[in-house]
Amino acid sequence: MTETAPRPTLEAVAARAGVSRATVSRVVNGGDGVRDPLVERVRRAVDELGYVPNQAARSLVTKRHDAVAVVVAEPETRVFADPFFALQLRGISKELTAHDNQLVLLLTEGRDDHARVGRYLAGGHVDGALVFSLHLDDPLPGLIRRAGVPTVFGGRPGWSDGDGDSDGGDVVYVDSDNRGGARDAVRHLVGLGRTRVAHITGPLDQTSAADRLDGFRDVMPDADPRLVVPGDFTPAGGERAMRGLLDHCPDVDAVFAANDLTAAGALRVLREHGRRVPEDVAVIGFDDMLAVTEQTDPPLTTVRQDIEEMGRLMARLLLRGLDRRTAEVPGATRSGVVLPTTLVRRASA
Amino acid sequence: MTETAPRPTLEAVAARAGVSRATVSRVVNGGDGVRDPLVERVRRAVDELGYVPNQAARSLVTKRHDAVAVVVAEPETRVFADPFFALQLRGISKELTAHDNQLVLLLTEGRDDHARVGRYLAGGHVDGALVFSLHLDDPLPGLIRRAGVPTVFGGRPGWSDGDGDSDGGDVVYVDSDNRGGARDAVRHLVGLGRTRVAHITGPLDQTSAADRLDGFRDVMPDADPRLVVPGDFTPAGGERAMRGLLDHCPDVDAVFAANDLTAAGALRVLREHGRRVPEDVAVIGFDDMLAVTEQTDPPLTTVRQDIEEMGRLMARLLLRGLDRRTAEVPGATRSGVVLPTTLVRRASA
Repeated sequence: MTETAPRPTLEAVAARAGVSRATVSRVVNGGDGVRDPLVERVRRAVDELGYVPNQAARSLVTKRHDAVAVVVAEPETRVFADPFFALQLRGISKELTAHDNQLVLLLTEGRDDHARVGRYLAGGHVDGALVFSLHLDDPLPGLIRRAGVPTVFGGRPGWSDGDGDSDGGDVVYVDSDNRGGARDAVRHLVGLGRTRVAHITGPLDQTSAADRLDGFRDVMPDADPRLVVPGDFTPAGGERAMRGLLDHCPDVDAVFAANDLTAAGALRVLREHGRRVPEDVAVIGFDDMLAVTEQTDPPLTTVRQDIEEMGRLMARLLLRGLDRRTAEVPGATRSGVVLPTTLVRRASA
Repeated sequence: MTETAPRPTLEAVAARAGVSRATVSRVVNGGDGVRDPLVERVRRAVDELGYVPNQAARSLVTKRHDAVAVVVAEPETRVFADPFFALQLRGISKELTAHDNQLVLLLTEGRDDHARVGRYLAGGHVDGALVFSLHLDDPLPGLIRRAGVPTVFGGRPGWSDGDGDSDGGDVVYVDSDNRGGARDAVRHLVGLGRTRVAHITGPLDQTSAADRLDGFRDVMPDADPRLVVPGDFTPAGGERAMRGLLDHCPDVDAVFAANDLTAAGALRVLREHGRRVPEDVAVIGFDDMLAVTEQTDPPLTTVRQDIEEMGRLMARLLLRGLDRRTAEVPGATRSGVVLPTTLVRRASA
C-alpha cells in the first residue's frame, strides 16, 4: 500500500494565497468573476502545495466524469479468449481517446456479478455505458435502466416484452446485417451445387446468432432439421457440433458456421475424419477475424463484418448523445446503425 | 441512448412514506435512531418507487466504492495480445469477485493517456489501484501518489531517486524471483555443455527484464557482449534478435530468452535457418504460459512463474490494506511478496 501524505485542503490553499475559500473554489472550478492577479496567486498556491481538487465533490456539481464504462456480458475469461472483443474494444478505445474520455472496462466472473456492475454504473462514476454480448435473460438491461446512465448497445437487444422497453424506440444499438450476411453465405454454398448444407448456430439467446439462423432458413426453408446443430461461438463448440453432424448426417457436403471460431473447430474435426475441404465439405464462417482466418487450413471463406468500426460507432453515438462534439454518424437512425457485411472468398468454399 | 424516466428522488420517497427527508436519508444510509415501524414504511416506499440512492453523494460520506482500478501501463493492443496480462487479470478478478469488489480496468492507447488515468484515480471512483507493467520513466507512479489512492504494484517498481519515494518503504509490490529464475535457466544451459550462451533481453526499462539480465550475468560474468541482444517481450522482437545473433555470432549454441513469447519468435527463426533445437541451439524461455508453450515446436523448456497467483496476491494485499477481511498472505513483508520460480524442462533444452 502506498501510504500517502494527507492531501492539501482548499483551506490550506486559501491560507497560502491569502484569499477566501470561496475565491479558491471559483478559480479551481474555472468560474469567472475573480480578478487576474488573484487568479495568479491562487494558481501559484495550488502548484506549490500540490493541491488536487476533490473530483468526487466536483463531479457532483458538473455531473461530468469524461469516462465511459464498457460492459461485456461475458465472463472475463471469454473476453480475453475471443478476439472479437479485443477488436470491438480497439474501436471503442480509439474513439474515446480521441475525445479524451477514459475507457472504464468493468470485468466480471459471470452473470452473478451483474448486480454489482449495475451498482457501479449507478454510482456516478461514468457519463455513459457501452454494453455488448447481451443474452436474452440477462438482468443487465433492467439494471442499466435503473442506473439511469445513457447507453448504447453492441448488437440489437433481444427484449420486446412488457419490461418497459416494449416500444424499442429509446434503445440505440450498432449491429451488422447478420441475417443478410448469412443469406449470402448459404446462397454461395448452394451456388457451388451443395445439397446437404448444415448450419452450426451460435448461442440462440443472442440476437446475432438468432438472426444468422434466420438467414440460413431464408435460403433453406425446408432443411433437414438434423442439419441445424447448436454451437456457442467457441472452437470447442464447433468441434462438438461437427462430430455430431458427421455421426448423424454423414452425407453433409457444406457447413455454414455461425462465426470463425466455430468454423475453425469444425475444420479440425473434418481433418481428423479425413474429409477434404472444400472438395468433400465446403465451410464458411462469419466475422473475418484475421487472428482466426490466418491460422485455418485451408484459408477460411467467411462473411466479413467490420468489428472495430462497430466499436468506434458505438462510442461515437454515445458521445453525440452526451453532446460532445463528434463527427456525424452516416446512416444513423434514432435506433442506431446497421452495418453491411461482405462475403470474403478464400479456399474453404 | 436509453432515455430513462427521471429517477425517483429522496423527497418522493419521504412523501410516499409520510416521513421527513432526514428519516429517509438515515434509513437508506443504514444509520440508527429510526423506529422499526418507520424503517419498514421507508423500505416499502423505496421498493415501490424503485428508488436508487445517489451513490455519488453517498460514497462522499462513506468514502467507499467497493471497486478497485487495474492499470496496465501498456497500450490496450498489447494488453489483449500478450496472454501474460489475461492471466494476471484472471487472478485479480477471482480475488476481487470473492470479496464483491468491482474490477475497473482502465485502458489507454499509450503513455500520453496516463494523465487522464491519474485524473480518474483522483476522482473518487475506486478504493485502490493495482498497477502493473510499469516502465522506468513512466509518469504513472507520480500521478498515483498525487491521486492519493492506496496502490499495490505488480513487479518491483524501478524508481529509487529523490521523487518522494526514495526510502521505498511505503511501496508494496508482488514480484517473482526474476534474477534467481534466470540463474537457474543459464546454469541449466551451461550444465548441458553449452559454451556460447546468448541472452535476448526484455525491455530494460522494466525491472523484470533488468533482473533477468542480472541473473544471466551472475552465471556468465565474462560473456561476449555480442551474445546479449535487446528484445521487447514480443515474438517479433525475438525474431529480430535471433536474426541478429545468427548474423554476428553464428556459433551461438544456446539462447536464454527473457520470456516465452520472445523464445517462440527465436524458435521460428532458428527453424527458418535450418538450425535444429536443441541439438544445434538449446532454447529456454521465461513465464511458462500454456498458450505459448503448447504451440512451440519443439515444446519449450522455461522458467515457470505463477502469474495468476501474482494477480491474486496483489488484490489480496490491497484488500487487506483497505481493512477488508481477507486471508493472510504468507511470506508478505511490509514491501510485499516475492514468489519463487521453477525450471520446467521440456524438449527445447
